[in-house]
Amino acid sequence: MNAPLNADVLARIADMLETRRPGNGGDPASSYSAKLLARGPDAFLKKIGEEATELVMAAKDGVAEKIVYETADLWFHCLVALAHYNLRPEDVLAELARREGMSGLVEKASRPAS
Amino acid sequence: MNAPLNADVLARIADMLETRRPGNGGDPASSYSAKLLARGPDAFLKKIGEEATELVMAAKDGVAEKIVYETADLWFHCLVALAHYNLRPEDVLAELARREGMSGLVEKASRPAS
Amino acid sequence: MNAPLNADVLARIADMLETRRPGNGGDPASSYSAKLLARGPDAFLKKIGEEATELVMAAKDGVAEKIVYETADLWFHCLVALAHYNLRPEDVLAELARREGMSGLVEKASRPAS
Amino acid sequence: MNAPLNADVLARIADMLETRRPGNGGDPASSYSAKLLARGPDAFLKKIGEEATELVMAAKDGVAEKIVYETADLWFHCLVALAHYNLRPEDVLAELARREGMSGLVEKASRPAS
Repeated sequence: MNAPLNADVLARIADMLETRRPGNGGDPASSYSAKLLARGPDAFLKKIGEEATELVMAAKDGVAEKIVYETADLWFHCLVALAHYNLRPEDVLAELARREGMSGLVEKASRPAS
Repeated sequence: MNAPLNADVLARIADMLETRRPGNGGDPASSYSAKLLARGPDAFLKKIGEEATELVMAAKDGVAEKIVYETADLWFHCLVALAHYNLRPEDVLAELARREGMSGLVEKASRPAS
Repeated sequence: MNAPLNADVLARIADMLETRRPGNGGDPASSYSAKLLARGPDAFLKKIGEEATELVMAAKDGVAEKIVYETADLWFHCLVALAHYNLRPEDVLAELARREGMSGLVEKASRPAS
Repeated sequence: MNAPLNADVLARIADMLETRRPGNGGDPASSYSAKLLARGPDAFLKKIGEEATELVMAAKDGVAEKIVYETADLWFHCLVALAHYNLRPEDVLAELARREGMSGLVEKASRPAS
């Protein structure tokens, strides 16, 4: 049963990404994450658009393994972006928890107009 | 300290989404998630593309609160997609955990050619 | 044979969009384009992400009519963005024409590193 | 004045792409377009998601040259997709021309519910 181990995987990856940041000694030559973080926002934000599209295509294909794989890719690149902006996955989980009490329709109505 | 509470928020939302599926009595009139699930893949997959773009724009603006908010939106709609395909966030976390042992560059090289 | 008529449709739409800009008397209450232009970049850029995703989904479905429809939607929202930034579709066509002489692989190599 | 020349650039690129299709002798080793067309839909559809994101980022940066460049990239990959599905840019221009008579709000209301 791996749920207890994996519940913290987002936090562990965030800790790892922290060490990959250019100011913390991240080495672009040996780490994919360090390379993305060194290249800056456009590099990892582009990946978010790309991985979102790959998830959509995997879902249209309906292949479970690919859907899981592409969701993991997408979330991973979100974690890279969060690291760059000094944010943590715990912030995202707290935002999701904040919304739990609301019905989706109430929640949607409570959003700031955009 | 809310980390212990929030570590399971993805699983709790997945449990909630399970009850919103059309076959499980989800009511599109009272629930945003039930409405998305009733309308089918194109409805929620389109939201994944849209929310990914909103996250990219929030990141370009560099506003922390918006980045967290849009990441939560994006992950939420990923959870809706996972629910539709009988998948769980735990599957995604397990895939992320599987990759932890590998350096990013090794991991990337191990991917199937696409 | 409508090619001669339609060759200029991009320019005609750009001319129309020019009149829909807030400073040129565009009325958000009566025009979808004026509404987008009045709301500013995030409103129409979000649509570009959304319509790109809809095109990808239509293509995965392989339904010709939908592919044409969604490509038109995507290009239309690109024209809205160009209008906002004082750019013209002719600028995009000129850039495409500039690349015509190059093979795709040469062209790709000539791009600035990103 | 290059407008007369460039009005047909979309059609000329479509003609070129036709020759890059695998069944028409397109050579993936010497042509970027032939490579995309040989790899199939996921390869060029992924690029549509990626280029849309790059256009959004260029627009957020407000750099005219980049906006034009990324729009050209996005439209080019749309042309590749159209070629694969036996469609032409003229089809997209005809769809845009069809909508010209309608106000945007009328046009939006006339769309099939999605």
